[in-house]
Amino acid sequence: MEQGDEYYMELALAEAARGLGRTSPNPAVGALLVREGSILGRGYHHRAGEPHAEVEALADARRNGHDTAGATLYVTLEPCNHRGRTPPCTEAILAAGIVRVVLGTCDPNARVQGGGAALLAEHGLSVRQGVLQAACRRLILPFAKTQRSGLPWVVMKAGLSLDGRISRRSGQGGAMTGPEAGHFVHGLRNQLDAILVGRGTALIDDPALSCRLAAEERRDPVRVVLDRTLRLPPGAKMLVQQSAAKTMLFCGERADAGREAGLVAAGAQVIRVAEQASGLDLHAVLRHLAQAGLCSVLVEGGARVHAAFLSSGLVDEVALLFAPCFVGETGTPLTRGPNAGPDAGGLFTQPLLETESRRLGADWLLRGYFTAPDSLFPA
Amino acid sequence: MEQGDEYYMELALAEAARGLGRTSPNPAVGALLVREGSILGRGYHHRAGEPHAEVEALADARRNGHDTAGATLYVTLEPCNHRGRTPPCTEAILAAGIVRVVLGTCDPNARVQGGGAALLAEHGLSVRQGVLQAACRRLILPFAKTQRSGLPWVVMKAGLSLDGRISRRSGQGGAMTGPEAGHFVHGLRNQLDAILVGRGTALIDDPALSCRLAAEERRDPVRVVLDRTLRLPPGAKMLVQQSAAKTMLFCGERADAGREAGLVAAGAQVIRVAEQASGLDLHAVLRHLAQAGLCSVLVEGGARVHAAFLSSGLVDEVALLFAPCFVGETGTPLTRGPNAGPDAGGLFTQPLLETESRRLGADWLLRGYFTAPDSLFPA
Repeated sequence: MEQGDEYYMELALAEAARGLGRTSPNPAVGALLVREGSILGRGYHHRAGEPHAEVEALADARRNGHDTAGATLYVTLEPCNHRGRTPPCTEAILAAGIVRVVLGTCDPNARVQGGGAALLAEHGLSVRQGVLQAACRRLILPFAKTQRSGLPWVVMKAGLSLDGRISRRSGQGGAMTGPEAGHFVHGLRNQLDAILVGRGTALIDDPALSCRLAAEERRDPVRVVLDRTLRLPPGAKMLVQQSAAKTMLFCGERADAGREAGLVAAGAQVIRVAEQASGLDLHAVLRHLAQAGLCSVLVEGGARVHAAFLSSGLVDEVALLFAPCFVGETGTPLTRGPNAGPDAGGLFTQPLLETESRRLGADWLLRGYFTAPDSLFPA
Repeated sequence: MEQGDEYYMELALAEAARGLGRTSPNPAVGALLVREGSILGRGYHHRAGEPHAEVEALADARRNGHDTAGATLYVTLEPCNHRGRTPPCTEAILAAGIVRVVLGTCDPNARVQGGGAALLAEHGLSVRQGVLQAACRRLILPFAKTQRSGLPWVVMKAGLSLDGRISRRSGQGGAMTGPEAGHFVHGLRNQLDAILVGRGTALIDDPALSCRLAAEERRDPVRVVLDRTLRLPPGAKMLVQQSAAKTMLFCGERADAGREAGLVAAGAQVIRVAEQASGLDLHAVLRHLAQAGLCSVLVEGGARVHAAFLSSGLVDEVALLFAPCFVGETGTPLTRGPNAGPDAGGLFTQPLLETESRRLGADWLLRGYFTAPDSLFPA
């Protein structure tokens, strides 16, 4: 039975999702080739420098013994029409005899904007745009944000009580939430390029900051610690553990050179950035991460780090995991310090957009955006 | 077409809901009479001292010109089998020739427990129990709590930011949430017997504490203020406004007699209760309310009142309205004071049960129970 375009785009989205967290600085993209209700091939972008999703799908069709002439191509993101590390996909599509192209979203990148779709239409292909557009855009927010601003997509994440406390007692660590919420967090870590914490969290919890999903699907994000004076000990778990991902420590310009040497010897990368009255220059930190090819950052706290990111206006998305309990004033508040309040400006009291809520075990996930996804794409 | 028992019980529940907030110290109950797919009559308990729902439904059937012999009675709560202010409903049911009875829930009241259903079965009626039991129980939690404990059902309600702040700036009032959340709160006020606030909230907001729904459906709850030293001015809005509901002020035993006289002259009822280190004796306050026939109390804060109720273990249900924003440390936390924390014991860090979440405009409602509804009914 022949299905609608939305059906095949769902399958292309599922392909794209296989590359999530592996493709930076490129986006996660999926593609599907269909003719008369038969799926000829499917593909996704695996990692930067390797073929794009459209080319993977064409190769898959050939491997399956299919000619692609007359087929429809479903692709979650508009095909590129420029030569980067790989030839333009529009060329491959024309050469393969594709007659119809269905697109999830246009490209946020100014070099491509409309270019790919327009070129294919000029060559007589039928082009349909915007199928499952919202879902296709949500998949590539890190790419879109980095393309448009030179800064990574920042997700602020916290597990907290219903009265907004991230620990039961100030200065104490330990998760507030249950195993289902933990699984969700490790899913985020598996898909975002970097995970960032403040020195306080690093010292109190001595966290691994690793992704602890089943081995075949997991990969660790790059670990980032804001550590103005380099107090992290070289024996910290995140440095001594087995992990393919590196650890980046951001410190102030006057941090002790001896401490730096010890941490570098332990495997850390140390980056000096400017200091402001309220702490390290977060814009500089984020610019550095984007330049290193990291398009998304999961900010996991603590309270002063959350406050600094909010007051700097640098949070794009929020994921809160509410445990169904009250802690009271003795617990650590979600935000703390001189940056935590309406006088700090930035995103304090700004509304979170497109919020969603769902149950995770006994806990409740609440997600939303400070940066509306559509704002990163041409209107 | 003949429908299933659940269908008719839904209609009986809708009848019961018409009495919500009007029946204390009695429960809200609804009843429906059905024969061969035809609804013969329906009724609900209007207020204490007036006929029970079953008797109302029988009278409705007679008004409609129907003989009730051979009919099935749907009733949300097991019929009473004792003589209170009205004769036992079981007598009326037997006299009406009912052949089958479908019950939502058994009665939590020890004088009735099983008695009504067993008596009807002994007389040869077919009895089915527990149809839509959870919904039927949720409708009468105030009655069940008061019957079992001598204390009213306490609902803690707050509008707060995602970081758990109930105001943007300490000492400032004003709603955090939008109009849909406000409508929900007035629905609660319309259905619960009393609304309770602390003196701080009463002085900062000068609230009306009235129900502001459309005129034909609204009724004001009794207003209760915890005001240890009687600081509320006799000109407070809640005292001078037009309202059929009274205002009760609870104060300490040493509160000034002159202030009391002024407030009584302004129409308030002043009740002296014992003081404890942490404030007024909340058990004594709640016992007094239950003895006055008030079976449910909506606790609206502020922060010290929420802390006192939580630490005393006196909250049965929680309704939080989350505005999608962060306020920071300058805002008032949900709980504050010497009672606010795990050392205070009580319900701090206890899990909220059977939580539910839903969107209300831009805000999110999160509800749950500290007292599981089923715990108030015989197993």
